Amino acid sequence: MLRTIFQSDPDFESRLKLLADRAGVVPDSVEAGARAIVAQVRREGDAALRELTRKLEKRDLPSIELSRQEWKASAARVSSEVRAALAQAVERIRAYHELERYYSFERKEEGIRLSCRYLPLARVGVYVPGGTARYPSTVLMSAVPAKVAGVREVFMVTPGPSPETLAAAEEAGVDRVFLVGGAQAVAALAYGTESVPRVDKIVGPGNAYVAAAKRLVFGDVGIEMIAGPTEVVIAADRSANPAWVAADLLAQAEHDAFAVPILVAVGREVALRIGEEVERQLAELPRREIAGRAIASQGVAIVVDDAETAIALVNRIAPEHAGIALANAREWADKVTAAGAVFVGENACEALGDYFAGPSHVLPTGGSARFSSPLGVGDFLKRTSFIEYDGAALARQADAIACIAEVEGLSGHARSVLHRAKGKPIRQREPSERT
Amino acid sequence: MLRTIFQSDPDFESRLKLLADRAGVVPDSVEAGARAIVAQVRREGDAALRELTRKLEKRDLPSIELSRQEWKASAARVSSEVRAALAQAVERIRAYHELERYYSFERKEEGIRLSCRYLPLARVGVYVPGGTARYPSTVLMSAVPAKVAGVREVFMVTPGPSPETLAAAEEAGVDRVFLVGGAQAVAALAYGTESVPRVDKIVGPGNAYVAAAKRLVFGDVGIEMIAGPTEVVIAADRSANPAWVAADLLAQAEHDAFAVPILVAVGREVALRIGEEVERQLAELPRREIAGRAIASQGVAIVVDDAETAIALVNRIAPEHAGIALANAREWADKVTAAGAVFVGENACEALGDYFAGPSHVLPTGGSARFSSPLGVGDFLKRTSFIEYDGAALARQADAIACIAEVEGLSGHARSVLHRAKGKPIRQREPSERT
Repeated sequence: MLRTIFQSDPDFESRLKLLADRAGVVPDSVEAGARAIVAQVRREGDAALRELTRKLEKRDLPSIELSRQEWKASAARVSSEVRAALAQAVERIRAYHELERYYSFERKEEGIRLSCRYLPLARVGVYVPGGTARYPSTVLMSAVPAKVAGVREVFMVTPGPSPETLAAAEEAGVDRVFLVGGAQAVAALAYGTESVPRVDKIVGPGNAYVAAAKRLVFGDVGIEMIAGPTEVVIAADRSANPAWVAADLLAQAEHDAFAVPILVAVGREVALRIGEEVERQLAELPRREIAGRAIASQGVAIVVDDAETAIALVNRIAPEHAGIALANAREWADKVTAAGAVFVGENACEALGDYFAGPSHVLPTGGSARFSSPLGVGDFLKRTSFIEYDGAALARQADAIACIAEVEGLSGHARSVLHRAKGKPIRQREPSERT
Repeated sequence: MLRTIFQSDPDFESRLKLLADRAGVVPDSVEAGARAIVAQVRREGDAALRELTRKLEKRDLPSIELSRQEWKASAARVSSEVRAALAQAVERIRAYHELERYYSFERKEEGIRLSCRYLPLARVGVYVPGGTARYPSTVLMSAVPAKVAGVREVFMVTPGPSPETLAAAEEAGVDRVFLVGGAQAVAALAYGTESVPRVDKIVGPGNAYVAAAKRLVFGDVGIEMIAGPTEVVIAADRSANPAWVAADLLAQAEHDAFAVPILVAVGREVALRIGEEVERQLAELPRREIAGRAIASQGVAIVVDDAETAIALVNRIAPEHAGIALANAREWADKVTAAGAVFVGENACEALGDYFAGPSHVLPTGGSARFSSPLGVGDFLKRTSFIEYDGAALARQADAIACIAEVEGLSGHARSVLHRAKGKPIRQREPSERT
């Protein structure tokens, strides 16, 4: 059932290239649909949100914001067991992210003071998918790092929150909840409407329309990344328990039919045994229909000769999740240079990272781990540069600056320096007026 | 000439809102053009680069990469004065960025080891505009932070580099130069062609097609930001030298006809005197035609009653460059919460930041300083999370994890944890096989 390809196959390289270069292609219809929605919300505000929600979700939207009272009442219906688990998860996510520190710095020279200062973003929107799936964990994994960074206002947008999602929002410190979803929610956060204040950054995963809308508004508002289908690559050798590896591949596969579960097996026998386990466990899985489609469409076992090749493949694919179920797992994990999160050793199952360990589960997909990072405190901070010179310091550098400015043909730049460094002030000023 | 609006104007708030909410609208024709170009390069590689360069730039492209020999020969033509100025600038940019540090961290608990590690991106592309304008400074301000971060390969793409730009590339440590520009260069870097290896991130400013292309490839490759027209907001009171403030507004205005020079003057008289200086100096400026158009179209003096209001306006506009030409400049600068770079006091002219002080001149435009940062070392690093648990630690948390997984309807996730924590292994393994 798990398609197998071998390092020794003549077309191995070309099949691998397809996996590694899986840059996204958004269907034109989705892109065009998202574009029309964004334009409508930008033009018509709340009225557009109401109309689109009625049209696309068959849902009336008497109030766009969920009142604090309704929010609390719904969240109160959550069992104490779930509430305790959410609170514990929040505590672990917070403790981990408090270690992600950024340091403002200063460079002082004679008459010169340069500095770089970090400040939190003022207002952030967290997109939480709704509908049949309920994702309280997404709230935790997005809102907690924002709050640790010092973001004053964290909004959640979601089309139909469950009590558990609302309880998670409470535990994570979310400030306001808006009952909109899809591309229209992204547009509302990006440009603001009468009910939804404009935010500085939008984070969190969503469907293809949400992803397309995020790409469209990128630049007008901050976007952490464009999420594609969720992925795992597990590198396993014969030291690994086949049942555990199979369980992780299936956990990945049950997300949705587009999920990507990849096994890199050191040796044919390892692939075989894990493949058998996948079939056995799949039959018992409540979400076997979805998981089975993901396994059949995207699932693959790649058989390689040694652990070194396995790790090289992980790096080449740069997956969202990389499982290292190899003997001496820690040493091999240290060689991973491109992955969102690395699960070291066979006890570190992906579900640990999804819910509980501490690092955010909002991770770069589609190979973007080559250049982007797990959602973290840094996503909610910005730097600003400060430049301060006295007249003597400016005079020392004036000629070199004017020289480069003239090379670029920008005499006005040269003049602005030379005026100060060499020119006469236009008027004599009293000392009391000086800075 | 400098249009003036007053805090006391009845329509002050609405005019200000137009300035503050200046989110970009890319013309559909530009977007469509960039989209077609990106698709063609993705499909046809080098052949598309050659054809598009011939069609759009009337230029033949016998070799897409500039050979090291030609590069060195052209750069050798630069005067020793320019070479020295570039080398000095590189040294200052490097010294500043070496202070921008990121720290990997680890959280250890009993049986648990979580960590976050920073790694440099492997390969980065720097876009440098070409044609009539020559921008050696853009090379320095983009490539030096990348090299400080530890990026192994830095590529420069530019349609027709001057000797000065090539000398700057040499000084900044650029590894390879490709002679392509526009949306086609962005596509080549994003997806790779026969001659241009795919990069992990593309940085640097460009025209509207470049900006549109960067938005289109965002997600498949890293993008630092979408650059809009360059902007300055200078807050000045009567302590400021009107001639110097005017020179800075004009330095901004001479960039191009879309440049945005804004003065926030404390008191009518300050606006008047600076306005007079702008007119006087404009008449003498070599690029007076361009600067005059920028002043006429985007230039504005906003008259406010006090410095506090001036700073509030700076924050609301969140400009690329903020000049603080106010008495007690440092104290007021400390209150700036949204700007790319802040020029503190009237000696800190923008040209200092453009060429020489140290912080990168690649700065967030269009109000994106609300959520994004000057280009820096952090843009060329990525984080990866590592999660390692032993069996006992997993067992302690298994119930809480399974509880959240079940709330989300993801039983496969719950099983992957419970299998390990509570289930029997499928087969007994020899101790020697264990991790």
